[in-house]
Amino acid sequence: MARIALDAMGGDFAPRAAVAGAVQALAELEPTHTIQLVGQPDVIERELAVLLDGELAALAHVRPRLDVVEAPDVVEMSDKPSAVLRTKPNSSMMVGLRLQPEGRSDGFVSAGSTGAQMVGSVMILKLHDGLKRPAIPTVFPTARHAVVVLDSGANVDCSPEELVQFARLGAVYAEDVLGRPNPAVGLLNIGEEPEKGNAVVKETYQLLQHAGVNFRGNVEGRDILRGRNDHGDIDVTVCDGFTGNVLLKFYEAVAPFMVGLLRSAGVSAEQLERALEPLDYSTHGGAPLLGVRGVSIICHGKSSPRAIKNALRMAVQAVESKMNDHIGRRLSASAEDAA
Amino acid sequence: MARIALDAMGGDFAPRAAVAGAVQALAELEPTHTIQLVGQPDVIERELAVLLDGELAALAHVRPRLDVVEAPDVVEMSDKPSAVLRTKPNSSMMVGLRLQPEGRSDGFVSAGSTGAQMVGSVMILKLHDGLKRPAIPTVFPTARHAVVVLDSGANVDCSPEELVQFARLGAVYAEDVLGRPNPAVGLLNIGEEPEKGNAVVKETYQLLQHAGVNFRGNVEGRDILRGRNDHGDIDVTVCDGFTGNVLLKFYEAVAPFMVGLLRSAGVSAEQLERALEPLDYSTHGGAPLLGVRGVSIICHGKSSPRAIKNALRMAVQAVESKMNDHIGRRLSASAEDAA
Repeated sequence: MARIALDAMGGDFAPRAAVAGAVQALAELEPTHTIQLVGQPDVIERELAVLLDGELAALAHVRPRLDVVEAPDVVEMSDKPSAVLRTKPNSSMMVGLRLQPEGRSDGFVSAGSTGAQMVGSVMILKLHDGLKRPAIPTVFPTARHAVVVLDSGANVDCSPEELVQFARLGAVYAEDVLGRPNPAVGLLNIGEEPEKGNAVVKETYQLLQHAGVNFRGNVEGRDILRGRNDHGDIDVTVCDGFTGNVLLKFYEAVAPFMVGLLRSAGVSAEQLERALEPLDYSTHGGAPLLGVRGVSIICHGKSSPRAIKNALRMAVQAVESKMNDHIGRRLSASAEDAA
Repeated sequence: MARIALDAMGGDFAPRAAVAGAVQALAELEPTHTIQLVGQPDVIERELAVLLDGELAALAHVRPRLDVVEAPDVVEMSDKPSAVLRTKPNSSMMVGLRLQPEGRSDGFVSAGSTGAQMVGSVMILKLHDGLKRPAIPTVFPTARHAVVVLDSGANVDCSPEELVQFARLGAVYAEDVLGRPNPAVGLLNIGEEPEKGNAVVKETYQLLQHAGVNFRGNVEGRDILRGRNDHGDIDVTVCDGFTGNVLLKFYEAVAPFMVGLLRSAGVSAEQLERALEPLDYSTHGGAPLLGVRGVSIICHGKSSPRAIKNALRMAVQAVESKMNDHIGRRLSASAEDAA
């Protein structure tokens, strides 16, 4: 049983995409799960009425599992993320996050400002011991199985110790949310050999050998889409947020670029759509902010109802697998080992 | 008129691919250009005889423009790059490079060990003033026009000053070899705004505004394949060799990955081959090692005759455009500005 709060006002297509995604998620989830729509009640109620009387009328039976939680303020993309908590303490973002420490909710999902969600999550949920910053994992669809790449943008200058923490965070995420037992962890690098790489990465390689993770050595750029390096399958790839963010945005641009090339060569739109479906980001919906004491799922601003639905399912999975507890235990175990 | 030395013994498919590429290049190039095949004369002569009596018989008229230069030693991939110059001073790599300071050649092309070629080029050709290390540019095929990304692997830890030098090197390369007048230079970063990025990149942004290059601000991962950022077209994108190498290897893996997805969806092999032809690395053949006082073109170990041919054409273009002089002048002009 999980109670997931959803920022009904966040994202380019809010509140429509958020409310529709919530209804669709409840229709798929076990009936014990509930969703709290956080935002301006009149706006949310109007949207719910339109959807449940209209295109989602067949799902109207989920209505009793939807609550509305009032949050009068709305965070705009132009608001400075670091100031939002102070200037708009009653935004849907902050009210939604506060439900967790208040014991009223188990997880939070938003397609609003990523920066504001990071700041709010750290301030309201707090970080696990031993962390200076949270990390954002991205799931890269590959030929074999998806690979988690982290950090993908929350941390631009990283120490070896921080990269090791990312490995632990990513391993718990891969196990709890993606269902990979004893996930194999690789270090993004420019060669296979331990002595390759820049100064930070070389030191990280040494630390990862005794970090309590299933470390499988270096992963090169070409290995990511293979889902493996020469030592076997890889579930998690660790890198600093600068490299991770460049790679992620590059990858997002690959599919449209390829579609252009292929369309010019006469490949049909239908074939392409079917072929590239595995690359659709909305399959994964969102990324949990790892390291905070709670569940905070970050969605793309352009999230469709399907993406929101899948992000809500991810939140439920994170809650049910007790990912948050596992992260806390994993980090404190390594702190004890080090002591 | 350019005299290009070619390492006939380097590369996975040597000497066949090298010799065939040389013959094909001469058939396409103006008749004033000549090629020196560097390596073991008996091996080279035998290969030439086989090709010119056989599949390349129609091109036998280029034979007088081919010289053979003796080099008894052969560099193996297992040789330590930093030691090759000492342990194998008469390898095809080192003999071929020495022809330039001896005034007997204008450029050098090799598909042998990249590490040995870097070390040899720096030791034998020497670096231009003001440089600590050379840089390797990679040409990324994109939707509009190819974008030069550098450094793509020669330098893993880079200072802001080094990134600025890459911008100057890349600009001369784009102008002289790719024919882009006043090339637009971007800085690879994780956002558009000047204040984005890690510490090195933030400082580089400031320096690039007064570096004598046509600086167009930050380039995000998604901009590379568009060939532009929001300020217009981009010809050159600057990054450290760690990020550049990860991105390059990732990109090389994209086409095979996409082909797999598309074949599973029933797209025909012929359509794919035609569609993805622009991504074929052999179109560009090789990358010049930028910063050394001469022309040293690095080719992929798996170079086909076509790739070797195109690398030789690139060498001719670098010689004829006087890229080397332009780099020297560009770097000393900026040193004077700074003084």
